[in-house]
Amino acid sequence: MSILPKILKELIDDLELLPGVGPRSAARIAYYLLRAPKTISLSLATNLADLKEKIKICKKCFNYTDSEICTVCSDPTRDANVILIVEEPLDVIAFERVGEFSGVYHVLGGVISPVNGIGPEEIRIDELIKRAKNNKIKEIIIATNPNLEGESTALYIKKEIEKLEKNIRITRLARGLPTGADLEYADEVTLQKALEGRSEF
Amino acid sequence: MSILPKILKELIDDLELLPGVGPRSAARIAYYLLRAPKTISLSLATNLADLKEKIKICKKCFNYTDSEICTVCSDPTRDANVILIVEEPLDVIAFERVGEFSGVYHVLGGVISPVNGIGPEEIRIDELIKRAKNNKIKEIIIATNPNLEGESTALYIKKEIEKLEKNIRITRLARGLPTGADLEYADEVTLQKALEGRSEF
Repeated sequence: MSILPKILKELIDDLELLPGVGPRSAARIAYYLLRAPKTISLSLATNLADLKEKIKICKKCFNYTDSEICTVCSDPTRDANVILIVEEPLDVIAFERVGEFSGVYHVLGGVISPVNGIGPEEIRIDELIKRAKNNKIKEIIIATNPNLEGESTALYIKKEIEKLEKNIRITRLARGLPTGADLEYADEVTLQKALEGRSEF
Repeated sequence: MSILPKILKELIDDLELLPGVGPRSAARIAYYLLRAPKTISLSLATNLADLKEKIKICKKCFNYTDSEICTVCSDPTRDANVILIVEEPLDVIAFERVGEFSGVYHVLGGVISPVNGIGPEEIRIDELIKRAKNNKIKEIIIATNPNLEGESTALYIKKEIEKLEKNIRITRLARGLPTGADLEYADEVTLQKALEGRSEF
């Protein structure tokens, strides 16, 4: 690869650092940009250069924002008394894509994971408790991922909220078969949860 | 997605234009850059901004370069009398990765494709003929892609070179089973070529 012009090599090296981009796709992207209109690479360059300066963390829900309070938290049509708890900012996008949720979010910034040395203090649980304490929250929906760490984080949050004795409804996302799934290939835990959570037909 | 901060939305839109990057991976890359050290996005930004200014086309082989003549063409250890013809600059990288080829390249910049209105004049065949005419070329290896357009471009080049009557050896890459292939799934043309091109064992 030493035959590459320096800037092209550097660009490919940079691109390879991105998630989901391997050496070949990095080269493909770089060569695409060489052929594509100049505006594409320039727009990317500008946005990348400004990214870290312009993006802040919302003081209420800890999602990314470009002002003090994010667009969701400052939207008067959204119900600030229903909080959906997610692990990462990307999870917020997933819910907004569905467009069914009209409450607000709370971004934990991770999960409790003793193996990785992440305790409850390392993620934004204290901030959540404070929000629950100082506001008239009706419901807290815990949407951590359905895996071991997500489940134990959910359990920890449930206990801490219950300690407040504020009559807040605590819910968890439904577990079951994903749409389009094939029963034959469903794992045992998923099938078990689907059976437990069965509903009238 | 309207809840996204403007710059983040713009960055995701930009990233979606790149080959192999869909809406979800674009979002994943953008959020990765937000968490990653600032140097990563800044280095990308600088290289993207400079890309089109710094990259030129080699006057000999038409590959990308940052000087008049590319590193391959200006390397005295490479045999300038053996020319490997490829469709695109990315194909040069593929051969350089193998590291077996010690000649020079000629980048056509496409293939003859009547359907898409691309004739021999639209790609760098004239330039190739000129190179073959003015130099003591020993061998021309045609490495266009093994599909309809690549094959007809190869045939056209062969005829044009033969017209020069300069006793240049014209070769084509071997056709056959790719390494690791499964005979059961090989297509008929590949199997036919593998049989035709069989060698002593």
